[in-house]
This record gives sequence, C-alpha cells and structure tokens, in this order.
Amino acid sequence: MPRYVYLDHAATTPVDPHVWEAMKPYCLNVFGNPSSLHLFGDRADEAVHQAKREILHLLGANQGKVVLTSGGTEANNLALKGVAHMYQQQGRHIVVSAIEHDSVLSACTALEKQGFTISYIPVDSQGKINLYKLEQMLTEHTILVSVMHANNEVGTLQPIDTIGQLIKAKRLKQGTKTPFFHCDAVQTLGKIPFQVEEWGVDLLSFSAHKFYGPKGVGGLYVQRGVRLSPLLHGGGQEYGWRSGTQNVPGLIGTAYALKQSHERQPEDWNRYVKLNTTIREGLQALPGIQLTVPASLALPTHIHFLCQQIEGQALMQELSKKGIAVSTSSACHAHYWAPSHVMLAMGYNDEQAKQAVRISLGRGVTSEDIHYFLQQIKEIIRTFRSSHALS
Amino acid sequence: MPRYVYLDHAATTPVDPHVWEAMKPYCLNVFGNPSSLHLFGDRADEAVHQAKREILHLLGANQGKVVLTSGGTEANNLALKGVAHMYQQQGRHIVVSAIEHDSVLSACTALEKQGFTISYIPVDSQGKINLYKLEQMLTEHTILVSVMHANNEVGTLQPIDTIGQLIKAKRLKQGTKTPFFHCDAVQTLGKIPFQVEEWGVDLLSFSAHKFYGPKGVGGLYVQRGVRLSPLLHGGGQEYGWRSGTQNVPGLIGTAYALKQSHERQPEDWNRYVKLNTTIREGLQALPGIQLTVPASLALPTHIHFLCQQIEGQALMQELSKKGIAVSTSSACHAHYWAPSHVMLAMGYNDEQAKQAVRISLGRGVTSEDIHYFLQQIKEIIRTFRSSHALS
Repeated sequence: MPRYVYLDHAATTPVDPHVWEAMKPYCLNVFGNPSSLHLFGDRADEAVHQAKREILHLLGANQGKVVLTSGGTEANNLALKGVAHMYQQQGRHIVVSAIEHDSVLSACTALEKQGFTISYIPVDSQGKINLYKLEQMLTEHTILVSVMHANNEVGTLQPIDTIGQLIKAKRLKQGTKTPFFHCDAVQTLGKIPFQVEEWGVDLLSFSAHKFYGPKGVGGLYVQRGVRLSPLLHGGGQEYGWRSGTQNVPGLIGTAYALKQSHERQPEDWNRYVKLNTTIREGLQALPGIQLTVPASLALPTHIHFLCQQIEGQALMQELSKKGIAVSTSSACHAHYWAPSHVMLAMGYNDEQAKQAVRISLGRGVTSEDIHYFLQQIKEIIRTFRSSHALS
Repeated sequence: MPRYVYLDHAATTPVDPHVWEAMKPYCLNVFGNPSSLHLFGDRADEAVHQAKREILHLLGANQGKVVLTSGGTEANNLALKGVAHMYQQQGRHIVVSAIEHDSVLSACTALEKQGFTISYIPVDSQGKINLYKLEQMLTEHTILVSVMHANNEVGTLQPIDTIGQLIKAKRLKQGTKTPFFHCDAVQTLGKIPFQVEEWGVDLLSFSAHKFYGPKGVGGLYVQRGVRLSPLLHGGGQEYGWRSGTQNVPGLIGTAYALKQSHERQPEDWNRYVKLNTTIREGLQALPGIQLTVPASLALPTHIHFLCQQIEGQALMQELSKKGIAVSTSSACHAHYWAPSHVMLAMGYNDEQAKQAVRISLGRGVTSEDIHYFLQQIKEIIRTFRSSHALS
C-alpha cells in the first residue's frame, strides 16, 4: 500500500469524526427550519443560538453577532462589500494589505469599479505589513481596514492587536464611528485563541473546513454597532444581513470543531513547532532551498520555501506521485497560473514566485510522515538537478 | 410519549440516512480541496465532476453547467443579479411573477434601486400566472423572465414548458439571445422530473434540503451560452461565477438525494395524492374552512387553506402544542408578520391572508398522522369557535 502524506492543511482539513457525529442529530432528527414558529423550528432555533453563543465566547466576544455564511470567501465578501455599501455616505476609502486573500482583493477590485478607492498596505520581504504606511493611509474618508491574521501562502502573522489599537485611536481622534477593522482569520482560527474585543477587531471572518469542521460553512463576527448591507436578499435571516435557510448542522459542526480546536490548541501548537523545526532543518540541508519566512514570524503550521531553478508546480507533481500533498500557492487559484501576488508584494520576481512551495501541517501529520517527505523531496531534487544538469 | 407530526416539508426536510452515509467518506477521507492540484485534490475534483454530471442528467440537460451555491436563496440571487449585471447592455428590464419567493422579489427590489425595471406578472385567484400578460410584458429590452415551478405557500404549479416555448419564440422573432428564462424549482425538484432542455429553461434554482439532502447547499443550472456576473469574488471557482472552496460532501449529498428522489418519485407521488385527498376531505367537513387552490392545480404535497375568523398563527401554535407542525406562510419570513404577498396577489385581503395555513407532506407522513392531525384541528377549531363565540 502506498504511503499518503497530506501536507496541505492550509487548503483544507478533513472533518474530525467527533464533529461529524455532533452534526448527525441536527441532520436526521432536530432538522427543523429555524425560521419556523412551531416546535420543530423552535428546537433548531435554540441550537442556532446556543452554537453562536459558544462561538462568540471562543472569539473573546461578550457581545456582537455571528453571521452564518457559506465559508471564508462569503464572509470576506460580506465584510468588505457589506461595510462599503452601508457606510459609503461616510466615505468611499478602504485600506487593505497587499497580501490579502483573493476573496478580499477581488472584492476590492469589484468595489473599485463602483467608485471606491482602495489603498494597499505594502509588506516587507517577510510578509509583515508596514504599520507606518498603514497609519499614513488612514483618512477621515476611510471606512474600513482589512488585514488578515496569518497569510495563507507564507504563514506570516500580523500584529492584529496593534492594528486594532491604532484604528481605535484614529476613530477617537476623529470622533467618528469609522474606520472599522476587519480581520480575515481563516488561517488562524482554532490555532491561535482570538480575542476580538481585546484586540479591537470589529469584523472577523472564519471558515470551518480549515479547523476540522465541515466545508460550505463559515461566519463573520460583527461587533455591536456595526451594520452591513446584505449580499444575498430574501427571507431576512441572520439579522437581515444574509438571507437563506440557516445551515444548522453546519453551524453546530463549526462550534464543535472550534471548541475542540481550542481544547487541543496548546498541545497541537507544541507538536507543530517540533515538526516545523524538523522540516526547516531538513530542507536547509538540501541544495538551493531558500526559506522565505523565519519560524519566529509565521504560524508553526506553515513552511514556505523556494527551490532554486525548479518550478514549484513540477516539484508538487513529483511529490504527488509519491503520495505527498503540498501546495505551490493558494489552492484557491491553483487552476490557472499567475505569479503569487503575495510573493510579488514581498519583493520576489516572477521566476522566484514560480519556485514557491508551501507545506502546511495538521493533526494527522507524524514525524514518520516528515521523514518520508524529506527523503522523497531530497530524491526528487537530486533527479531534477542531475537530469536538467542544473546544479 | 407525545406524538410528533411534521407537516411542514415545504420549509425543510430531514436528511435521508442514506444521503448522510453517502456524504461521510467525502468528509472524513476524500476530503481534499478540489482546487488543489495534487492527488487529494484530484480525487475531490473528480467527485465534483461526477456529481454534477449526475445532476445535469437528472435535470434533463445534455449540456450546460451546475453552479454550486449555499442553497436556493443564493441560487436565485445569482440568477437574477448575475444575469442583470452581465447583460445590462442588452437591456435593463426583468419580468417576474408576483408570487415569486422572497429571494427573487427582494433581489428584484435591490436591482430596481440600481436602475433596472421590473414587471410583475399578475396571477389569478388560484395562483396561476396570466400568460397573456406575460407575453405583453416582453420587450426587446427584457433580459430575463423568472417564474417559479410551484409556489412555496399555495403549491400552485405554473406551465413551465409553455412559458419556455413562449420565450424561445420571442428570442427567435427578435433575433436576440435574451430574454433568458429562469425557473425557481426549489419546491418541485425531486417531486417532478424536470426537463430543462425540453421545457426551454435557461437557468434553474434548487436547494438540497427540500429533497432530503443537506442544508446549506443548492445550485443553479446554467444553460450553455448563458454567462453570469459573480456575487462572490475570490479564487475563481465554479467557472469564475461563484468563488469559495466547493462544498464537496454537500454536492455529493445533493446528487445522491436527487437521484433517490427520482427513483422514489412515482410511488411517493401516488402516496401524496391519497393523503392529500384525505386531508382535503377532512378539512372540508369542518366549519369555516376554505381551500384556496384545488388539488388539480397544485403539488400533491401542498394543502393551503383559510380558517375563517381564526388567525393562522394561533391555529399553528395550538397545533404545535399537540406536536403537529404546520406553517402559516413561507417559513422564510415567519419571524416578522406581514400579509403574504402571494395571498394578496391572488386577490385575498389582509384579514384573509392572516387566516392562511399551509400543510406540506413528505416521506415520513402516515395516514395515522393525518387522522391525528384532523382530529386535533377539529378539536382546536371547536374550542376556538366556542370560547370566542364565533361560530
């Protein structure tokens, strides 16, 4: 039997069997539509409220709302477009980092076509945003700032609490309600205990399938006092901000998965740190490998590197033949090739961007898996270099 | 143990245990992100393609696409706004029936604010649209016509194939690509074998949780040659029309549930017809009950009636105390009371609209359930009428 090693947990994770079981009664028995005003609806509605309270608690929120969405992309679209359309009277300026996820950047492009102005915060060669530039970009017309917690490709973490304080100070100084602060926490939720209120985050996106919950469900935390213009019109569910019958089992699974992730967090984190160190040491021993972001600046689940003179795509495909799954950049735009906007923003050129490979760790990964991976990549690189006479 | 009788299948249905089992391997094992270009992604991507081929086949389509959405509301929003924004150069006129689902009508209201003109096709007292008026409404600027297959509240079926031919003839006469024909088949899919190509339907919305599939997933069939402007921007999944990681288990569950519904369809239909007859006869024997739509014009799963001088809401709540779930109007706007736009369009007044009750049948309903329901409603009505001295 061939060995399978999945090192692409930033793209998606399997559903945890306990999460699966937790969802089951809400599919088969407590299956009512939460909008129905009879006993079946009431039970479903109670489950929705209970799950949302749990999520709010795990996010460090004493108040505010969780808006159920179909995942991170919809949550990001709702945050960006929802705030933009609701608060356009206050201003039509939005500030985002240059390395946001496609769902944030593409939503911004759509808003630009509608007359909004977008400022892109530059990052350094390790993916850290320039806080000084961010501060300079804020004007009285800025209604929203969006900065992700950890980048999906390179894993770099941003100082969310510092940004939160900076934005709060700006609002205080101006005496305005805006700008709001949106954080895409899709890569970090379940890995780092988030504190929305303490960190000054007004809107936070998450996606369940990144933390061993089901696909097709995610959410947007919305701080009290922030209002949204809906993307989906209809029956007025989810405070009128997101119509459509609520995915009750999906929400139950999300809450369960998040709780479980929090409980496992310290142990998982330590294990990832160890595996991460083994991988980094192993890769650095190979010829022509360049790690892009040091471990101290990134999520311990992420290792991002360039393999000089070898295309990441080719390396990924060779590893795949050995049963190993890694990624070249975001899985989300893997089906058409364009140089990663993240790498370009970090100062790499097109050729270097083509050489990028991402490893992302998860619960199932063992040190045996890592040794197998290091063995195989070593062999593949040697074959490449000798057959292409590159080394 | 109290008896529970669920007669609100138009609001939602439980997930069939076989559907649940069919989804399981795609949550726990074949869990890859279909956009990933490694072996885990490939297997998920193959599953997505296979499920979509199956759905297309079951819809009577030899070509065209299925766009995965989070449900019927998103499918309707994508059809309406997606066509409107893509084809606004050809015209800014849309025709819809006056009794469409909230997700269609609210999307139209949003489009009206953007400068689109919406014409509302009137219906008769039994909810049938006026085909003559529809024909008169079509102009060279009409880009879309949206008519639902069966109304969610009253169950009235529309002659989709006739409308399809009428629109095709208009296009031929004009020599234009538009208007397109969108049909919201959320209430009928799985109950009536649909034939999109034969019936001339260009876009068709469906929602899995209405046919014993999972909540939070649905889709939009799109005929070859029709293009859409996306609502959700991001990684470019689903032909660039609907970004976000695909809900693979949800899609698998949808395809499985639809296939199963088709296999059971003739038998289920006959059973519903019998139960429907029993209910109608039983209700007509009670004082002050008025059936709004005859069985011959409606889905056999639907029975819609008024109970003179008694509010539907009150009747529903009394039935709920007896373990019986019925609905007053669409579950989707049950949480705030407004007279049903469907009843108003059918010529009823506000007071009558308040007296409406919907029963919707499903697989689990037995004739014992129906006898229990008839017994209880008879008792409740008698108590109401005597205590309020109404009869």
